[in-house]
Amino acid sequence: MASKESEAVKQHWAKAREAAPETDRELGDHRWAELTTEPSDVDYLTVDGRPALWIVPKGAAQDRVLLCMHGGGFITGSRYSHRKLFAHLAKAVGVRALVFDYPLVPEQLHPAQVDDATATYRWLLDQGIEPTHIAFAGDSVGGALTITTQLRARSLGLPLPAAALPISPAVDLEATGASYDGNRDRDAFFHRDLVLGLVAMHLGPNGSPRDPFANPLYGDLTGLGPIYIQVGGDEVLLDDAGLLAAAAEKAGVEVRVDVFPQMQHTFQMAAGRAPEADDAIQRMASWVRPLLGLVS
Amino acid sequence: MASKESEAVKQHWAKAREAAPETDRELGDHRWAELTTEPSDVDYLTVDGRPALWIVPKGAAQDRVLLCMHGGGFITGSRYSHRKLFAHLAKAVGVRALVFDYPLVPEQLHPAQVDDATATYRWLLDQGIEPTHIAFAGDSVGGALTITTQLRARSLGLPLPAAALPISPAVDLEATGASYDGNRDRDAFFHRDLVLGLVAMHLGPNGSPRDPFANPLYGDLTGLGPIYIQVGGDEVLLDDAGLLAAAAEKAGVEVRVDVFPQMQHTFQMAAGRAPEADDAIQRMASWVRPLLGLVS
Repeated sequence: MASKESEAVKQHWAKAREAAPETDRELGDHRWAELTTEPSDVDYLTVDGRPALWIVPKGAAQDRVLLCMHGGGFITGSRYSHRKLFAHLAKAVGVRALVFDYPLVPEQLHPAQVDDATATYRWLLDQGIEPTHIAFAGDSVGGALTITTQLRARSLGLPLPAAALPISPAVDLEATGASYDGNRDRDAFFHRDLVLGLVAMHLGPNGSPRDPFANPLYGDLTGLGPIYIQVGGDEVLLDDAGLLAAAAEKAGVEVRVDVFPQMQHTFQMAAGRAPEADDAIQRMASWVRPLLGLVS
Repeated sequence: MASKESEAVKQHWAKAREAAPETDRELGDHRWAELTTEPSDVDYLTVDGRPALWIVPKGAAQDRVLLCMHGGGFITGSRYSHRKLFAHLAKAVGVRALVFDYPLVPEQLHPAQVDDATATYRWLLDQGIEPTHIAFAGDSVGGALTITTQLRARSLGLPLPAAALPISPAVDLEATGASYDGNRDRDAFFHRDLVLGLVAMHLGPNGSPRDPFANPLYGDLTGLGPIYIQVGGDEVLLDDAGLLAAAAEKAGVEVRVDVFPQMQHTFQMAAGRAPEADDAIQRMASWVRPLLGLVS
């Protein structure tokens, strides 16, 4: 049974389904961040000239970095909504994390988001961080970015990071998954029309849902580093995880998927409160540490 | 007329009056912090071994510090509820700020709070910060602490800081002020019984509301540095400001009081959103900068 602490994530989504979106984005992000506790012993440093935060747990390896891509359907979310989630993860891994704001829809459409994530990755490399010491982490549309940003980076001749950690990735842009029907009554927020609407807004009138820089299921994943996907068992996006894993496997990429029974979309946001979220974060940390060259 | 952004503070208090207190203190603090925007270009650094945060605006003078004492009736509030408020203030002043958690009621009663604030001040001096380069800032019961901590520090032989910035200070522990009646229908949260109840909880069965380390109106304020008090015109605690100012003047202390018409208790929490809050913060900054030896 889901813990009562994880029920808070479900309530958050159920409330979001009922309510009109918060027009004050910062306030909306703040309310989302309410799900996550403040992890102790973590510093937050602003980055000059970029809307990004360095997340620096005490004692973290300075030369290893999680590049963190927040979710929010490309219409919401920010470094502030996800600061604490990624801080819990960075602390568990024992590395620094960089969380950044990319342009949102409707102000900017695809490919502004993946381009911005790629530019941020390039900036990180320019800081002297080795690509083999970087892992991408991201939730929901940020989970898609953990893969599409690699495709974009490779197309520009950049080296690839060591690993990717997509959390409830939103990659099936045509909403073909059977879980849209199977979990229709379990998912507190998402449903097919909503996802297709978000995709249409993101891609704009001239975009294609099969553009590999938006939909990694149509990209060439050959040569990517290992991928560890986490997903909630009660999500309509459950099959997104399986589809991404299948595409990765087909391309010869090492992939692991963990399905967390009865969990909602991005249940890891309850980090510090819900045992399922803390377990998920510990699993990501144990998995990624050796890939970043840290003792496991 | 109060700006609509300042109305959010009133709504916050009105909601707090109606609702049972949030039993999850961190969640309650998070919801309080919702009133304040994230100021840009500010770093937050944890302190080893103390539940405190360094607030470091980009370009801030490193050797000048605001020691920040949060409000919350001694039963709630934390470095997280007030992080952004004091960051706005520190950024406006151009100095670092230290915001810290002190023990709360009912776990610990008076004088644990003033003792902890004094110990934190001593720690700050031990870091090599000159007392003449330190100002105390605090809201509500934290506003009282900006004065009582000085009395406690002096009794221990410590030097006094350069100045104090009490925001809506809660100092009239016997609730004698006429504003309790005059603003009864304007204050969205506080009323006499509530304040007397909080005071009784804080002091415990053996405490006295005239203990100068709890009630600065009964302390010897002689020799204290300048004090700048801000208060909302619609507060039942309006007269607390006047009583503190009168006590300070009587003791020969330089004091200024600004009453902000139609404003609620600690309306500065809407910093970054409400023009009244931003104006108040700029006034504090302009006032305190020369006292900290900064060019005004």
